[in-house]
Amino acid sequence: MKDSSKSGEWSILNRIHKDCKTSSKGPGKSSLCVGMGDDAALWRPRDGCDAILTCDWFLEGTHFLAARHPPEVVGYKCLARAISDVAAMGGAPRCFLLSLALPNSHADEWLNRFLHGLRKASQALGCPIAGGDSTQRSEILINITVVGEVARDIAILRSRAHPGDALFVTGRLGEAQYGLQLLLDNAQRIAPHDPRLRKHFYPQPRLGVGQWLAKQRLATAMMDLSDGISSDLPKLCQASGVGAGLNERALPVVKIHQKDRRKKFNAIELALHGGDDYELLFTVASKNVARIPKAIAGVPVTRIGEITADKRVVLARQNGDISRLQDKGWDPFR
Amino acid sequence: MKDSSKSGEWSILNRIHKDCKTSSKGPGKSSLCVGMGDDAALWRPRDGCDAILTCDWFLEGTHFLAARHPPEVVGYKCLARAISDVAAMGGAPRCFLLSLALPNSHADEWLNRFLHGLRKASQALGCPIAGGDSTQRSEILINITVVGEVARDIAILRSRAHPGDALFVTGRLGEAQYGLQLLLDNAQRIAPHDPRLRKHFYPQPRLGVGQWLAKQRLATAMMDLSDGISSDLPKLCQASGVGAGLNERALPVVKIHQKDRRKKFNAIELALHGGDDYELLFTVASKNVARIPKAIAGVPVTRIGEITADKRVVLARQNGDISRLQDKGWDPFR
Repeated sequence: MKDSSKSGEWSILNRIHKDCKTSSKGPGKSSLCVGMGDDAALWRPRDGCDAILTCDWFLEGTHFLAARHPPEVVGYKCLARAISDVAAMGGAPRCFLLSLALPNSHADEWLNRFLHGLRKASQALGCPIAGGDSTQRSEILINITVVGEVARDIAILRSRAHPGDALFVTGRLGEAQYGLQLLLDNAQRIAPHDPRLRKHFYPQPRLGVGQWLAKQRLATAMMDLSDGISSDLPKLCQASGVGAGLNERALPVVKIHQKDRRKKFNAIELALHGGDDYELLFTVASKNVARIPKAIAGVPVTRIGEITADKRVVLARQNGDISRLQDKGWDPFR
Repeated sequence: MKDSSKSGEWSILNRIHKDCKTSSKGPGKSSLCVGMGDDAALWRPRDGCDAILTCDWFLEGTHFLAARHPPEVVGYKCLARAISDVAAMGGAPRCFLLSLALPNSHADEWLNRFLHGLRKASQALGCPIAGGDSTQRSEILINITVVGEVARDIAILRSRAHPGDALFVTGRLGEAQYGLQLLLDNAQRIAPHDPRLRKHFYPQPRLGVGQWLAKQRLATAMMDLSDGISSDLPKLCQASGVGAGLNERALPVVKIHQKDRRKKFNAIELALHGGDDYELLFTVASKNVARIPKAIAGVPVTRIGEITADKRVVLARQNGDISRLQDKGWDPFR
C-alpha cells in the first residue's frame, strides 16, 4: 500500500481505514494478518483453498455520473459489482483493496458518504478492506481488487459448457438498465430510494447461488452478467467453444411499473441488452437439470435455453423466428 | 476479470493476455490455475505462506507524462514500482492484475510498446499477469495489483522498529529525482537510454535484499522509499511509535554527472526529498548490526542513522546542526 496522502491535516487512507475496518472473522476462516497501514496487506488463505483474484474499474463519467449517483451508491456499487466476479467462480469474498483518486473538493462530505456506502457493502457482503492507494485527481477514479476463496477444484469456470447443457439465469434481467434509463430521463424526478432504482444502485452479487452450485458441482460453466446477456453469453460460448440457443419466451424479464407503461420501455430489449444486473448465467448437464430447484439461496433461477455444438448464439423469438443474437450490450470501446 | 473490450476487431485484454503470459513456475511453487479469460483468476498459494496484497495507481499527468515517458517505460515502471511493496515486506511476487484505461488512439502502437515494457518487467521480476480490466478513457489510467508470497511469520512490517535500532538504506538516494529533473528540463535533450535516466525509468525493486533480511530475521522494520525519505521515514516512525535521527554525512547520495555540475542540483536535497527511488529503508537491532554485510544480493547497504525513543525525526547536518527533518517528499494532495 502506498499512503500517498499525509498523516497531517487529513489522511485519506487513515480515514478509509477507520471507516471501513470490520471485525476479524471467526476461527477456521482465512484472515487478514496485516491490513491498512503497511506497505502491503498480509492475508492467510485457508488450507485446501484457492485464492480468487479480480479487479474492476469504476470511473466517473464511464461507469457512474457524479451528478446522478449519490456518493453512498458509488461506494456500495463499486464493491458489490467487483464481488460479483467472486460469486461467478462459486467462491466467497475475503478482503478487498481500494484505489481511490478524487478532487480535493471531494475529500470531505463526498468521501464521508462514499465510505458510508462502501462500509455498508463491506459489512453486508463479509468483505473487509485490506489496503489501498489514494491520490488527488480532477475526476473520481476507483479501482477495486477483491480477493476471494474457493475450495480447491470446485471453482466454476466459463470454459466448461458442453453441447446439450441447459442454460439458466438467476433473478430478473433488465432491471438495472430500467433504473438507469429512469435516472437519465431528465423529465423524470425520481427519488434515490425509489424501488425501480434498487437494482441499478445496489446490485446483489449472487454469492449464495454461486457457492451452492460449486459445492453441489451442478454447474458446468458460469459467469456473471455485467454487460448484458447479448454481450456476455457469447463470451461464455467462446470460452467453451460452443454455441447457444436462447428462448425469448422463457426470459425472466424486468417488470415495467404501471406508471411507466406509456413510455418507450421494452422489457425484452432491456433484458437482452441491459448491463449491470450482476445475475449469474450458468449451464447444467441435462442429466442434472432435475436437481436444480426453482430458487437457490432465496433467488429464483430460470431455464432460458441450451448449449449447442453449432457455435452460433441464436435467439428463438416469441413469434417463432430464429435469428443470430445481436450483441448490443455495453462496451466502452464501441 | 471484466473483459469490457470485445473479442471482435481488437480485444485489449486478449492482446494483453497473449503478450504478457509467461511460463508457469516450477514444482513446489505457488501457481496460477486460471489466468486471463474468466471472471477472475485462481491462484494457489504454497502451504505455510501468507499472501501479500498491494495495489498502486500509475496515472497520466500525476505519475507519468505521456509526452516525456516512452510507453515501454510506463509499462515497465508501473509493474516494477508496485512489486517494490512486496520487496518491502520481505516477500516474492507471484502474479499481478492490470487495470488499464486508455484512449482509442492509444490502442495500437502505444499499447504494443506499453505491453513490451510490461512484459520485460513481468519476466525480469518473475511475476506473470493473472487478470485485469480494460476500458476506454481520454487519459491513460493504470492500476496494478500485485500478489506476493512470504513464509508465515517472517514478513517485515513497518511497525516493529525499536529505540536503539540502527537505520539502513539500500542503493543510492535521489537518483530517480535527478533523472526526472533532467527529463523535465526543456533545454536539455536527453536520450531515453541515457544512464542518468535509468533509475527514474527502470526502478529495481530490491527483492533479493528484502527476502534475505526476512529469512535471516535481521530487520525489525522495513518499508520501500517511494515518496522520498523525508516523507517516508516519518511514516515508519509513526507506525512504530518511535522517532529517528538521520545522519546527513552518511547518506548514500546520487552522484551528479560532471556535465551537470554547473547546474542547480543539490545531491543532499535530492536524496532527502526525491521520490521514486524504491530503495529499502530498514531497521536492525543494535546487537545484530555486525551481521549486516556491506552489500546484500549485490546491492550496497548503508547505515544512515538510528531509531530513537523521542518521537521526532531529526537530521544531523554535516555542519553539526541538528534540526527536525522537513517533510518535502512527494504528496499528490499537497
